[in-house]
Amino acid sequence: MPSTDLSRTETLYLTGLALVCVAVLVRTFEGEGEPLIASLALSGVAFAASYAMIRWLGPTFIKAGLKGRDLSKVNNSHYIPECMGGICAIVYLLTIIVFIPFPFFKDIVVATSGGGNRDVVMNVEFVQQGRLLHKFPHSKLASYLSAIISIQSITLLGIGDDLFDIRWRHKFFIPAFASIPLLVIYFIDFGVTSIVLPTFLQPYVGRELFDLGILYYGYMSAFSIFSPNSINIFAGINGIEVSQSIVIALLLVFNDALYLLTPYPHPATDSHLFSLYLLLPFLGVSFALLIHNWYPARVFVGDTYCYFAGMVFVVVSILGHFSKTLILLLIPQIFNFVYSTPQLFGLIPCPRHRLPHFNARTGLLEPSVTKWEKDKQPRSVVAKALRLLAQFKLLQLKEDEQGLITETSNFTILNLWLFWRGPMREDRLATELTAMQTVLGLFGLFVRHRLALLIFREDNWNIRSAV
Amino acid sequence: MPSTDLSRTETLYLTGLALVCVAVLVRTFEGEGEPLIASLALSGVAFAASYAMIRWLGPTFIKAGLKGRDLSKVNNSHYIPECMGGICAIVYLLTIIVFIPFPFFKDIVVATSGGGNRDVVMNVEFVQQGRLLHKFPHSKLASYLSAIISIQSITLLGIGDDLFDIRWRHKFFIPAFASIPLLVIYFIDFGVTSIVLPTFLQPYVGRELFDLGILYYGYMSAFSIFSPNSINIFAGINGIEVSQSIVIALLLVFNDALYLLTPYPHPATDSHLFSLYLLLPFLGVSFALLIHNWYPARVFVGDTYCYFAGMVFVVVSILGHFSKTLILLLIPQIFNFVYSTPQLFGLIPCPRHRLPHFNARTGLLEPSVTKWEKDKQPRSVVAKALRLLAQFKLLQLKEDEQGLITETSNFTILNLWLFWRGPMREDRLATELTAMQTVLGLFGLFVRHRLALLIFREDNWNIRSAV
Repeated sequence: MPSTDLSRTETLYLTGLALVCVAVLVRTFEGEGEPLIASLALSGVAFAASYAMIRWLGPTFIKAGLKGRDLSKVNNSHYIPECMGGICAIVYLLTIIVFIPFPFFKDIVVATSGGGNRDVVMNVEFVQQGRLLHKFPHSKLASYLSAIISIQSITLLGIGDDLFDIRWRHKFFIPAFASIPLLVIYFIDFGVTSIVLPTFLQPYVGRELFDLGILYYGYMSAFSIFSPNSINIFAGINGIEVSQSIVIALLLVFNDALYLLTPYPHPATDSHLFSLYLLLPFLGVSFALLIHNWYPARVFVGDTYCYFAGMVFVVVSILGHFSKTLILLLIPQIFNFVYSTPQLFGLIPCPRHRLPHFNARTGLLEPSVTKWEKDKQPRSVVAKALRLLAQFKLLQLKEDEQGLITETSNFTILNLWLFWRGPMREDRLATELTAMQTVLGLFGLFVRHRLALLIFREDNWNIRSAV
Repeated sequence: MPSTDLSRTETLYLTGLALVCVAVLVRTFEGEGEPLIASLALSGVAFAASYAMIRWLGPTFIKAGLKGRDLSKVNNSHYIPECMGGICAIVYLLTIIVFIPFPFFKDIVVATSGGGNRDVVMNVEFVQQGRLLHKFPHSKLASYLSAIISIQSITLLGIGDDLFDIRWRHKFFIPAFASIPLLVIYFIDFGVTSIVLPTFLQPYVGRELFDLGILYYGYMSAFSIFSPNSINIFAGINGIEVSQSIVIALLLVFNDALYLLTPYPHPATDSHLFSLYLLLPFLGVSFALLIHNWYPARVFVGDTYCYFAGMVFVVVSILGHFSKTLILLLIPQIFNFVYSTPQLFGLIPCPRHRLPHFNARTGLLEPSVTKWEKDKQPRSVVAKALRLLAQFKLLQLKEDEQGLITETSNFTILNLWLFWRGPMREDRLATELTAMQTVLGLFGLFVRHRLALLIFREDNWNIRSAV
């Protein structure tokens, strides 16, 4: 078993990083209170903390029964700790809780007598000079807090899932519970349930905005079920859950930066700053996890991490009003989900694990398959569909000499990729899929910002302009 | 093993209760939006939900390794589920999250165009009529959300403790982490760090209010470490953790009612309504747990419940500005903690478990003892202290014929009570201690409301009057 101590070099780097970050943080708090720099510094601390804790707590997790064996390795007899994403989630939550005062620092100083003390009587002239007109942005604070509550809820439920191994059809709905705080705050705080209609639909409906009403809450709820689950099923090889999440987070950060780097102040700046405050620490803890989860994995991430990551994206995009942009970044996940449905919904037998098959002789991964016995052939309509998919190279299908189907590859993007590109080593597969996620995501952002004008009258429609 | 199904009568009662509560809830939401009634109804639902889930999930918990044996029973070979307080905490959190819109319902309707839609343009005259002057109370919302975050944090950390069996000296500080959200919101939202000085101190300090500044945050932090831990160490027999928590919660509710039932509207009404909204669902889930945890226990509550309960009290009393009142209600806990310190801090050997000794022959509990070997006698100053305590009937101490100490009872209130009152059955002991908690708490409230005028100029000092 690998050592669970940090090497001397690691200790040195981590301590150095943490010290530098804390120094930056203290300066930020003393000075102007530039929250973005504070967020970056805190993310550094979060990286160091989760890196060290992931290493140290491995044996504790194994002792508590949170362990698993890596089936895609030659020597797979020893257990490695499972559910390590829980550590990331908890470090992350602590980070964003500690961060609360920073974005509101300027407001505290301006709106109060200074230093947060509000028990000092103000002169009336002072008020009339307008200094107090700048109100403390409690509604922004409430959004931020509801984000924390939603992410914390999904962490609790994720840990429950990892502990109790909840059945698939039960756990599918877990994220819906965690989205309740988000919906409730959205109801109280925004209440905007209209969507902008594409230009070509406007003549028929007769207006630009269409009020979805209560359906909008259904949409948000469905979205928060979809995002965490879609990351959870795009899994099965070392590092893939974390690397896809990091790519999505980086693309969201890039998208936020587009709004912040415009020469003129964009009306949506605040939403995108909010998004950055939640994404930077997420990247911090995720990189610490990726280093340990990348091939050959020393830890597993658990369902907790997938739920947690998916919920961070949901929270950021709903409260930042760019949920459609997120959908464009989730194209591989959406494809994987749609592609999986025949097995998820039981049209085709679904084995307990659908991860790629490890060929111990070559050391490479191959598509895993569902076997069809001679007396248990698929129904004729299913068989036709399978053959059609195989014709379009969307399925690996083998027949015997009588034309009976003997095996089909399992319906996941991982198996499909292996079918297209041939057997390959686990880390190669993870790298290629991560690259694919990046390319498709960049294309999605390009569509969002350049092609959206074809179907919407204005780019970056801002909610305020509708009020 | 007892059945984990609900009996037909139970199903009938629980379903009936839940249906009535939901009906009341729907009416509340449709009508005036009386939040106190909604809170009561939701608490009923929470009771039914946790009652059923505690029963159903027992085998799942045992399978996941969350199990323990009841050492104070004759037949103690079978395992019963441990950490069931986690279910209560999660049902509770879901309840208070769903409750969010209710206290703010009136504000939503008044401050918006109705039904939460704020994307409707208002006429200027309409605004000038003053209808919009009533602002949405975002700062109250932020307090409520920070309460949720703190309680959710302690639940996460409590589950971690139950899972990983964290060492006592590490877990002592767990609640401090969970208090961070509370402190941060307090910093942003109130920032009042002054305390009212007792009258007899005022001449020396020269004013009524004394600003503790940053020390106030230390005080709050220490308080949130103390309260959960003090409940956690006042444990060891069936039902005692839950019954003491219920008594404290009922007394806090009684105290809140004193403010709400005054003929004139009291300035602190809002704080005490806030307190009720958090305490009523707590009572709901706690009663469901008590029924299963009372002698003979069918489930254990776990550290999660003790932390959770202690944190609910901290949150309620800090955000409601009556932390001194809570201290008066925790007198047995404070006594137990102070009394325990010699063993907790290692002055006297502390066995792994200090729960009362079960005498299988009589079926009664007796004080558990620490044995002193002839060659391992306490140091002379410790021996003197022990003898002094024994003289004041605060310790059961046995000597041999040579005057050497052979055994002393363990330093917990449970053992002390058994020493005073003689061996008794487990449920009798729990009942007597609960009664003692009730009597002392009522006395504490009497002191708070009748005798406080002796040392403070005004009763029920309100924060606003200081601004």
